[in-house]
Amino acid sequence: MRVEDMICISVDDHVVEPPDLFEGRMPTRYADAAPRVERTDDGDDVWVFQGARIPNIGLNAVAGRPKEEYGVDPTAYDEMRPGCYDVDERVKDMSAGGVLATMNFPSFPSFSGRLFLGCDDEDLALAVVQAYNDWHIDGWCGAHPGRFIPMALPVLWDPELCAAEIRRVAKKGCHSLTFTENPATLGLPSFHDEHWDPVWRALVEEGTILNVHLGSSGQLTVTAPDAPMDVMITLQPMNICAAAADLVWSRVFREFPDLRVALSEGGTGWIPYFLDRLDRTYDMHHRWTGQDFGGELPSDVFRRHILTCFIADPIGMMLRHEIGIDNICWEQDYPHSDSSWPNAPEELARVAARYDVTDDELDKITHENAMRWYRFDPFAHRPREQCTVGALRAEVAGHDTSIRSMDKGRHAGAERMSLGQLAEQATA
Amino acid sequence: MRVEDMICISVDDHVVEPPDLFEGRMPTRYADAAPRVERTDDGDDVWVFQGARIPNIGLNAVAGRPKEEYGVDPTAYDEMRPGCYDVDERVKDMSAGGVLATMNFPSFPSFSGRLFLGCDDEDLALAVVQAYNDWHIDGWCGAHPGRFIPMALPVLWDPELCAAEIRRVAKKGCHSLTFTENPATLGLPSFHDEHWDPVWRALVEEGTILNVHLGSSGQLTVTAPDAPMDVMITLQPMNICAAAADLVWSRVFREFPDLRVALSEGGTGWIPYFLDRLDRTYDMHHRWTGQDFGGELPSDVFRRHILTCFIADPIGMMLRHEIGIDNICWEQDYPHSDSSWPNAPEELARVAARYDVTDDELDKITHENAMRWYRFDPFAHRPREQCTVGALRAEVAGHDTSIRSMDKGRHAGAERMSLGQLAEQATA
Repeated sequence: MRVEDMICISVDDHVVEPPDLFEGRMPTRYADAAPRVERTDDGDDVWVFQGARIPNIGLNAVAGRPKEEYGVDPTAYDEMRPGCYDVDERVKDMSAGGVLATMNFPSFPSFSGRLFLGCDDEDLALAVVQAYNDWHIDGWCGAHPGRFIPMALPVLWDPELCAAEIRRVAKKGCHSLTFTENPATLGLPSFHDEHWDPVWRALVEEGTILNVHLGSSGQLTVTAPDAPMDVMITLQPMNICAAAADLVWSRVFREFPDLRVALSEGGTGWIPYFLDRLDRTYDMHHRWTGQDFGGELPSDVFRRHILTCFIADPIGMMLRHEIGIDNICWEQDYPHSDSSWPNAPEELARVAARYDVTDDELDKITHENAMRWYRFDPFAHRPREQCTVGALRAEVAGHDTSIRSMDKGRHAGAERMSLGQLAEQATA
Repeated sequence: MRVEDMICISVDDHVVEPPDLFEGRMPTRYADAAPRVERTDDGDDVWVFQGARIPNIGLNAVAGRPKEEYGVDPTAYDEMRPGCYDVDERVKDMSAGGVLATMNFPSFPSFSGRLFLGCDDEDLALAVVQAYNDWHIDGWCGAHPGRFIPMALPVLWDPELCAAEIRRVAKKGCHSLTFTENPATLGLPSFHDEHWDPVWRALVEEGTILNVHLGSSGQLTVTAPDAPMDVMITLQPMNICAAAADLVWSRVFREFPDLRVALSEGGTGWIPYFLDRLDRTYDMHHRWTGQDFGGELPSDVFRRHILTCFIADPIGMMLRHEIGIDNICWEQDYPHSDSSWPNAPEELARVAARYDVTDDELDKITHENAMRWYRFDPFAHRPREQCTVGALRAEVAGHDTSIRSMDKGRHAGAERMSLGQLAEQATA
């Protein structure tokens, strides 16, 4: 398939929330208590909520910047591409990158919305979550129908309220919920606890998919305080692997056979090894551990319930049939540092060509699987022939996608944040 | 290749230490202070040292028992096959299993010998480590020349003493040292600290390979206290993956270009994905993290320094060229629960046939790589034609390898050890 003819839907991009997100969306009594943006004396823009100050980490908004400027320093809105936080600019960047539609994870609330967990005033926290979801679904995604898969934040501190929110947003057409890869790490009951049953029930009844994004437990895999940052970056997918094991061996899929989970940014190349290990563990040990999948294997359970997602993963493409061709979705990860925007389709096409991926297989990976798992139909809004990489790019011909420096020298000479500091911030 | 014609060397089996290990091997003043075996009121045999009581975990000695009897309960010598602790019986079991030679990790001192770390009397601890190494090299391996790759315990609490012990055992022909996958977890300086340089220097100068065995940090990957045991078993290789990342990104391989490390029981199927992730991390991030491998990639460094080891790993066999055909060794894992003894060669041959492994490739995986990495030459002791699966089995025709119950009902009705208890014991 020619790159121009591909149709690309990314199930993992990120929005940097704009400062006016909560304007007009909070109940009057809480209007002054909503999260707000402040500029620090150092020139960083930070979100402030209930005493917490959350910087926009530079590494999370590097689309269009040279790699020399990547880093974990805080940043300001005017040091980002407008596509990070402005939906009209975002859609232009998507088109220029050849991407039809994207699902956008949150930034300042954390991937799982854990910022709002532990808020003293739970009514306020609920109002914030609902205002966020309304903005995301109506304001952000609603501005360009057919270009976004809407995704809601959960109510982490109360499963019944979470179920109600799942049902509320489903009525608006939202069938995707972001969640944590490990609630136990956040001090909540684990995946093995019946505590979460109201959530699973609502997800199943509304046809909503649960997304556990790499890093969403706030736990980093750090080998030692003096380990270089590269170790932590390399090992990020580990918690996702742990989440997959946790879910497959739990009672959740047995009790809720229609529940579906996506391992967002989890990668795919490790899956065949993992499935082998699941099945071997079952074969060698189930007679004493007491696990029982009837006539099935744990790998069967995995493939029925779990969607795998990758940015660029040549080994995963090579092993697509060992993973399951219906279980793989592509991700662009704009505007994070792992993204190849605006050339992500070209990167994908090169890998597909290397491993003789057929057109039918590539269609599943680039958009058909995403449409089916997320119940999303962009073709209802836009004729199929206008959805291709080539057609989208032609629409925004002239849109500037050049890589250029946005470095204002604010951090020049400043000491880099250490891994210890980063871990502290991540788990704060 | 026919199974009978294969030559099998396993770089990861285990010895259950016999009760008389220390007899006649300790300095007179410490004769009474050596670790010793006691039988408990419950009928378990436990090692006792300096107030610590270490049970022989049943799961670590299940060769020849039906899977229904696997478990983490303590056990007694008379509930194990004699091949676990008796070297003459071990060699018969090896021959009956078609295996020419094995390298044997310790049991009661833990894989890395961390039992002797933190001993109040460091002179005593050193005497114990040296007595253990003398027994292992002279007593166990020495009883059947050419049938064992000798491996020494480290002196974990003192890098200079450790270096001296590496040099002492090298004079006895021992070129393999067991170590921990993460010293930081044991409260010691990490792999990134110059603290260990005397050890690395001694290893390089003596041509000794460092072995980090799955589980050797005493840290289990546990998602939640109420997670089923199966989650922990599935996730065991994670710490090995972390160790590989730790070492590749550390200064160690740059400073000691001849250092060699084996990821014992680490598996192989995940390696190609991991190498991709290393290289992508380098490509995306090294401009700000400051890593510099010159003209090389981290995957080049991995392949020069690291040996991967597998028991049964079909995906790893399929991906042998993505791993590196010179970087793969086979393991039997006798007498642990992951072993397929006495049919391990058959299992290996089936997987090799499935993925069209050539005879040359299979020879590397079954014995040539082990001989080269460990500087081990069994053919100096036994003509090559007597080293094959078929020839070895013919020598011990009639040796009983039938699977049979050794259950004495001692644990019937007893509650299984919980994951929390197991983790506590593992990290005690």
